[in-house]
Amino acid sequence: MIHIVLLLLPLLLSISHASVNDFCVADLNGSDGPSGYPCKPPTKVNEHDFVYAGLAAAGNTTNIINAAVTPAFVAQFPGLNGLGLSAARLDIASGGVIPLHTHPGASELLIVTQGYVTAGFIASDNSVYVKTLSKGQLFILPQGLLHFQVAYGKRKAVAYAVFSSSNPGLQILDFALFASNFSSSLITQTTFLDPEQVKKLKSVLGGSG
Amino acid sequence: MIHIVLLLLPLLLSISHASVNDFCVADLNGSDGPSGYPCKPPTKVNEHDFVYAGLAAAGNTTNIINAAVTPAFVAQFPGLNGLGLSAARLDIASGGVIPLHTHPGASELLIVTQGYVTAGFIASDNSVYVKTLSKGQLFILPQGLLHFQVAYGKRKAVAYAVFSSSNPGLQILDFALFASNFSSSLITQTTFLDPEQVKKLKSVLGGSG
Amino acid sequence: MIHIVLLLLPLLLSISHASVNDFCVADLNGSDGPSGYPCKPPTKVNEHDFVYAGLAAAGNTTNIINAAVTPAFVAQFPGLNGLGLSAARLDIASGGVIPLHTHPGASELLIVTQGYVTAGFIASDNSVYVKTLSKGQLFILPQGLLHFQVAYGKRKAVAYAVFSSSNPGLQILDFALFASNFSSSLITQTTFLDPEQVKKLKSVLGGSG
Amino acid sequence: MIHIVLLLLPLLLSISHASVNDFCVADLNGSDGPSGYPCKPPTKVNEHDFVYAGLAAAGNTTNIINAAVTPAFVAQFPGLNGLGLSAARLDIASGGVIPLHTHPGASELLIVTQGYVTAGFIASDNSVYVKTLSKGQLFILPQGLLHFQVAYGKRKAVAYAVFSSSNPGLQILDFALFASNFSSSLITQTTFLDPEQVKKLKSVLGGSG
Amino acid sequence: MIHIVLLLLPLLLSISHASVNDFCVADLNGSDGPSGYPCKPPTKVNEHDFVYAGLAAAGNTTNIINAAVTPAFVAQFPGLNGLGLSAARLDIASGGVIPLHTHPGASELLIVTQGYVTAGFIASDNSVYVKTLSKGQLFILPQGLLHFQVAYGKRKAVAYAVFSSSNPGLQILDFALFASNFSSSLITQTTFLDPEQVKKLKSVLGGSG
Amino acid sequence: MIHIVLLLLPLLLSISHASVNDFCVADLNGSDGPSGYPCKPPTKVNEHDFVYAGLAAAGNTTNIINAAVTPAFVAQFPGLNGLGLSAARLDIASGGVIPLHTHPGASELLIVTQGYVTAGFIASDNSVYVKTLSKGQLFILPQGLLHFQVAYGKRKAVAYAVFSSSNPGLQILDFALFASNFSSSLITQTTFLDPEQVKKLKSVLGGSG
Repeated sequence: MIHIVLLLLPLLLSISHASVNDFCVADLNGSDGPSGYPCKPPTKVNEHDFVYAGLAAAGNTTNIINAAVTPAFVAQFPGLNGLGLSAARLDIASGGVIPLHTHPGASELLIVTQGYVTAGFIASDNSVYVKTLSKGQLFILPQGLLHFQVAYGKRKAVAYAVFSSSNPGLQILDFALFASNFSSSLITQTTFLDPEQVKKLKSVLGGSG
Repeated sequence: MIHIVLLLLPLLLSISHASVNDFCVADLNGSDGPSGYPCKPPTKVNEHDFVYAGLAAAGNTTNIINAAVTPAFVAQFPGLNGLGLSAARLDIASGGVIPLHTHPGASELLIVTQGYVTAGFIASDNSVYVKTLSKGQLFILPQGLLHFQVAYGKRKAVAYAVFSSSNPGLQILDFALFASNFSSSLITQTTFLDPEQVKKLKSVLGGSG
Repeated sequence: MIHIVLLLLPLLLSISHASVNDFCVADLNGSDGPSGYPCKPPTKVNEHDFVYAGLAAAGNTTNIINAAVTPAFVAQFPGLNGLGLSAARLDIASGGVIPLHTHPGASELLIVTQGYVTAGFIASDNSVYVKTLSKGQLFILPQGLLHFQVAYGKRKAVAYAVFSSSNPGLQILDFALFASNFSSSLITQTTFLDPEQVKKLKSVLGGSG
Repeated sequence: MIHIVLLLLPLLLSISHASVNDFCVADLNGSDGPSGYPCKPPTKVNEHDFVYAGLAAAGNTTNIINAAVTPAFVAQFPGLNGLGLSAARLDIASGGVIPLHTHPGASELLIVTQGYVTAGFIASDNSVYVKTLSKGQLFILPQGLLHFQVAYGKRKAVAYAVFSSSNPGLQILDFALFASNFSSSLITQTTFLDPEQVKKLKSVLGGSG
Repeated sequence: MIHIVLLLLPLLLSISHASVNDFCVADLNGSDGPSGYPCKPPTKVNEHDFVYAGLAAAGNTTNIINAAVTPAFVAQFPGLNGLGLSAARLDIASGGVIPLHTHPGASELLIVTQGYVTAGFIASDNSVYVKTLSKGQLFILPQGLLHFQVAYGKRKAVAYAVFSSSNPGLQILDFALFASNFSSSLITQTTFLDPEQVKKLKSVLGGSG
Repeated sequence: MIHIVLLLLPLLLSISHASVNDFCVADLNGSDGPSGYPCKPPTKVNEHDFVYAGLAAAGNTTNIINAAVTPAFVAQFPGLNGLGLSAARLDIASGGVIPLHTHPGASELLIVTQGYVTAGFIASDNSVYVKTLSKGQLFILPQGLLHFQVAYGKRKAVAYAVFSSSNPGLQILDFALFASNFSSSLITQTTFLDPEQVKKLKSVLGGSG
């Protein structure tokens, strides 16, 4: 049979030239660009590049929000680069809250895997869509809109959020306002919040300005 | 020369078949889809479909924010459909404010044409970028991030905002929270604002829930 | 405070015109197009459009492959339309197999939520990437490449597959070859399989031709 | 074996729901939109929808340019809808010319199949790239740039042009200027051509205005 | 309150990893690619990267066309990189003309801010759409089509052109033909212009070949 | 006339800054990324970068499949980079077969230029679309679906395949299964092929594992 294999070689070789871009595992040492990171050379890619174990363990919910968001974006999971997908794990203890936030660059599909989650978003016309989800239910949160997740009931909740970009971004409203150096006078001017309210939350969240 | 024209006709005719999709003026009576509205039949399109005069007059700034946003999105200017562009006119009286907001579906390029505008945005890592712009200066506001514009100084300011989508969306933070039916208990839970603050702004902005 | 609300109304109204396209819940009765289905009118959309419960129950694995794939694509979950995301639930009993298949229109991110799954794909250069995943681990399967999932060990496995399109497609190799009317002579000619092998699998899977 | 087939049916059925959008053959009676035409119902699609024979015969080159462009765009070949590809056949008799033109919506790959073709394009920085191509050679013409093809030598030339859009558009410079109703005064003002030159070419090509 | 801040730190830190790609200010020293330039490291970005003052001053219209085009494309304004937007300032003195041209890679939205501008474009089917615009009016020029702007009346006109790409390109018809090294014989062959006309305009515009 | 040329220079210069991205000839020594390779510096680009002669000669069909696929993807023809197009030449001797395969990243348009080709594809719902094509006929093969081409009749056939990506990929079913190191036990488990069949084809095609 060996002669047959040899006859096939020219075809095999011309094909292998075409194989470069099935995937593009991020070389995080390279400079990223508008479409993502440069690709790791294919010869250095192996099966470990396509696996991520960082969401297997629960996030630490011993904090002020009784909740944790653990991202598996391209910076954590380079195999996602350029493929239009990423994920995060949400751990929400009883009473826990993922505060109001947006993902500037992606829509989100929420999959509840434990407990109950009340999730909601607000649309551009100020309509509010809220649902309490049980295990196995999906909820879709369209790109760029303010949304939240809270645990419903006394049980801890766990959910996976998946995104339509390998780098969806995450802007948490309270952190943007009160954990940044956004000046208090501009905050009160552009949000109508009372100065005392701004001062109080800045002191909790560590903002300056 | 007439025989030459006739000889050209077969070529002319085969070309005219190819001309359908240079543009796609929205038929707003049709159902929109993920990429926009269906196209108005080319035979009904004329030069008026490509012009919009609705931004020529100043918006009315006699209101609580001393400012006005006048959109020229696809719903107002159907000729933009599918072309990845839209605009809005910002009129900001002295002391006026375009409150903190996002465009879920587009980046924004701001062009100041009168007075001074202080504009800023907050990035996902809570960095704040603020600049005061004079006439003719440009500022870029990346997609989906919280941003604002206020008049700087005693003069009225005018600016054009242009967007990388014919339907960028506009979510004003205060309206999403306090002019909607987003329940006060969920607001306090997901924003850490005090209940009194929420109640006060809901009464100003007309929110319920 | 009522006079302030009234003064705000002009701004509120001009904004509501801009709100149409935050999302585009599919009207499955309309004709789909290259970018998806036409949008359900916003006035008919409510929170139920953004939830899907069809993946909450286990799929029936009492079949020849001891496994089940339950899709939540746009046809099942219209709220996904145009948002670049969909999902499926994989139930794989002990010894079960999701046979070799591709998704012609999307990359896949696999999230194991119970048991152990051995998953793998073959790249264009015929490299094979295989990993056994435990609960909480992620695996990325780049667009259009042949891949499979099998239960590892004696336990039933459950996983969610999420996709970078609301309509990823699903082409199962064996069904394409042996459950279709693809003529046996063309199959043997284009796959080098023996005629007896083709005949045998067609009789199992119901193919003709 | 029949019982095995029956056990497979639940899987087969859930899969068929997912199959809608492998392709989207244009329903040319529907209204097109920014991404193309609505899809013909899958039940009405057969193999003939994926074939186009209109480029098999030579175009008629008995005309002023001694050449013919025969398009296979989505309007002629509905199976191309949404797939990002189209084609045209170029027949260029000895001395024939495809006059300077652009495709506003696509790049072009030229494949010469008979004779010799001199092709060229002009870039934004006014660099000119010209090559004479023989049978089997490829030339790439980047999107939106002015380009031309002429027969080189005494033989008739044939080439296929393929495009990165199912509807690339075709704007022929001379027809845009001299076969339209573009007013002669605006032409001279915006091109610096002499009025006599404009008048002469309008009389040949049938323009008015 | 300090203990609360500390408890938040784990969440804050995991979030900051996700923030890389809200924007991608061009590193113009890097090699550009099909989607733009590599990103400047976020630590080197400040508010000045998002501002461009180069359009604040009028362009010099003391030239043969009595007009000037001042671009703010990614090469001038690196903050635009990857955001799908750019701009240019048009200054057109009385009698001035922006000659017939195309943008191969973008649609254009024209905003008149002073005087009167007559603008027009020619579609693939040779239809001509022309309008005279006054201050504050918008005109949309679909991608890749030949268009022009001239001052209407005795006043100087100023307009901003904004584009649906950070690098729209600009091909001026007369410069492509008569300021390049496009050979005169190919020009006459592919445009039907008289050799004398070509010679005359080449001598004015500096073309060779 | 010289003074006029000089007066034009300011306009000419500002325009040349805008010209960078009409095209992006691949620098194959650079690291590719999700959207392709970095661009060769424009000053090093000449007309040869836009031509490819590698498909002019027939591929060698003296092999087991009596056929050859010669690719002109971005790795062979760097001028295609970022333009969404590529090509391949198919030479199929009498009795020759291009075995069942997919292109994970592109749709294919087939143009027959000699002889007769029977081509077909299988859709996600297991429908089979097969046609025998003669010279000049086109066939469209939607993205990611299994398809094949065989010579029909006694004559050698030649065809060009063009693709909607500069790097479409090519996964040949038999090579993925039987010329790789995909383990025989996983193959039998995920394809239902008999172990003897797998062993036989692996010995022909050189697979291991």
